[in-house]
Amino acid sequence: MADKKEKKTTDVNELGEFGLIDRLTSGFGIKNKTTVKGVGDDAAVIDNGEDFTLISTDLLVEGIHFDLAYTPLKHLGYKSVIVNLSDIYAMNGIPEQITYSIAISNRFSVEALEELYAGIRTACEVYGVDLVGGDTTSSNKGLLISVTAIGRVDKDKITYRNTAKPGDIICITGDVGAAYLGLQLLEREKQIFLEHPGVQPDLEDQKYIVGRQLKPEARKDMVEQFEKAHMVPTAMIDVSDGVASEIFHITTQSGVGAMVEESGMPIHHKAELMAIKFNLDPATCGLSGGEDYELLFTVDPKDLDKVRFMQDIYIMGDITEKSEGVKFRTKGGKIYDMKAQGWRHF
Amino acid sequence: MADKKEKKTTDVNELGEFGLIDRLTSGFGIKNKTTVKGVGDDAAVIDNGEDFTLISTDLLVEGIHFDLAYTPLKHLGYKSVIVNLSDIYAMNGIPEQITYSIAISNRFSVEALEELYAGIRTACEVYGVDLVGGDTTSSNKGLLISVTAIGRVDKDKITYRNTAKPGDIICITGDVGAAYLGLQLLEREKQIFLEHPGVQPDLEDQKYIVGRQLKPEARKDMVEQFEKAHMVPTAMIDVSDGVASEIFHITTQSGVGAMVEESGMPIHHKAELMAIKFNLDPATCGLSGGEDYELLFTVDPKDLDKVRFMQDIYIMGDITEKSEGVKFRTKGGKIYDMKAQGWRHF
Repeated sequence: MADKKEKKTTDVNELGEFGLIDRLTSGFGIKNKTTVKGVGDDAAVIDNGEDFTLISTDLLVEGIHFDLAYTPLKHLGYKSVIVNLSDIYAMNGIPEQITYSIAISNRFSVEALEELYAGIRTACEVYGVDLVGGDTTSSNKGLLISVTAIGRVDKDKITYRNTAKPGDIICITGDVGAAYLGLQLLEREKQIFLEHPGVQPDLEDQKYIVGRQLKPEARKDMVEQFEKAHMVPTAMIDVSDGVASEIFHITTQSGVGAMVEESGMPIHHKAELMAIKFNLDPATCGLSGGEDYELLFTVDPKDLDKVRFMQDIYIMGDITEKSEGVKFRTKGGKIYDMKAQGWRHF
Repeated sequence: MADKKEKKTTDVNELGEFGLIDRLTSGFGIKNKTTVKGVGDDAAVIDNGEDFTLISTDLLVEGIHFDLAYTPLKHLGYKSVIVNLSDIYAMNGIPEQITYSIAISNRFSVEALEELYAGIRTACEVYGVDLVGGDTTSSNKGLLISVTAIGRVDKDKITYRNTAKPGDIICITGDVGAAYLGLQLLEREKQIFLEHPGVQPDLEDQKYIVGRQLKPEARKDMVEQFEKAHMVPTAMIDVSDGVASEIFHITTQSGVGAMVEESGMPIHHKAELMAIKFNLDPATCGLSGGEDYELLFTVDPKDLDKVRFMQDIYIMGDITEKSEGVKFRTKGGKIYDMKAQGWRHF
């Protein structure tokens, strides 16, 4: 009954994630006047009359996106909500609802799922979000999670990826690279445990970086700070795939270049020490690590004074003309072409 | 690193799907005034000021919800959108956007995915819906799909499940049972094909029931008919799990009883013939089959004349007092207690 003809086929790896999305979604027109922004930003934007509704969705697969060998289900529940809320904040919006769907194999007990939902509930409480729906079904293997976050934003405050202008200042919140190093550490400890089941890992000293991997937070506080300061970033994205990848999303979509300064990229000293232990360059971990869920945004120079004194925001470079390319200047003053190195799942 | 302590655990099968959802989502409060309706209807309801935003989501797993041995990817793309749109129509709303996420193993080529997306695109065109987002990632096994539909409805036209009243008339659109029989036929042909690979199945005669399974439609036309007739059903649900299961959702949530007449349940003659071939009772196929994506709704007797002359709508019984229970009267006049027999994936 299956089609047996041999056809020339293309491996998805030839296109990469973003090339594949472009290819599959080309030819889809926009038919409704309520659709403001479709594929291509942190969240879809729908005009509901009074303001904009924001929709963001993620699909998480056990063994690909999370490893239950070292991820407590409660943390997984929490993190899976956070990563979606982060997309709403990246549009300068406030999430108010989520739907949460799971498909489970028969190895999951009710009690295990209650742990997962305890994490979801905590995230909902901390971020003021309501669980409003979802789907609960079975899988033939492992745990599958799909989360959709729904938020709103004033029409004049929405912040896209494609609106950075030459002369804008590039800012970033918090610190980057630690979540990636936390993951490396957990993976190493898992290997040790598999080879020597008697050895209990001691992660106490590395609470910070392990916490950044297992229990990230989303930057709701930044959206509130912008509101208080009566300012709107010119462009914004959340750091899920690493600083370099996010810089490329903003510069490519805005049609601009960038100069990113290593000296401006905030890296926690615990992450720096762990990078050195792993023989990794701390800056590379920040640029390519991912899963930091910080906000990377650009501001008009006129707003520089507002941003300069905000807590936990760092100035990391400038938006330049497109012809100047996307550059990275090391602390030693050397200038390199920056490369986008997001996660590659395929 | 995993918790090795033995704890008493509960199998999810002890609770069933709806019991599990109740248990996992209890303790989640509603914090936002924009949240009108959370878990427990076809779609979540969000107040956006001017009207209500509706959100419905589904998670589909290869080998559980679909079998690629007899489901062309284009049909799968189409159907996966339809089932979500159906949930929005079941609230008397109009879907305007979808997000579509996939996780794929490396056995899927770009060309195969283009087939899937051709089906998605056709559904979007036929139903006037925009694709506005999604997630594209990898799976370790098979194809996983998550669809979220976003719609809107006037505040005074929204139709819930829990608002049927004694005296209301139970109506149903189209016909039921055929999709289930289409599935039985496809499964039988697959077995024959696996045992005798040379035998090509001939499904030409059974186009109707196979089509109901592989390429269902959603009842957008009904929502338009209600609008034109200036009437709003008192309660509504779409038939995804079978008539019996949907009747139980409405009666349980509305706190009422029902009398369903076999003589009023529309079954296509092709489905009836196939049921007899399979030694099945046609009425049981209609009651317990599922995947018909028809609308089951109740109307106030004052609107009976409006409904009576609408095309493709059938009167199937009455809502009664709760104390009278949920009954089914056969064509022969015998009265049975009805049993909810939805799909059991667990």
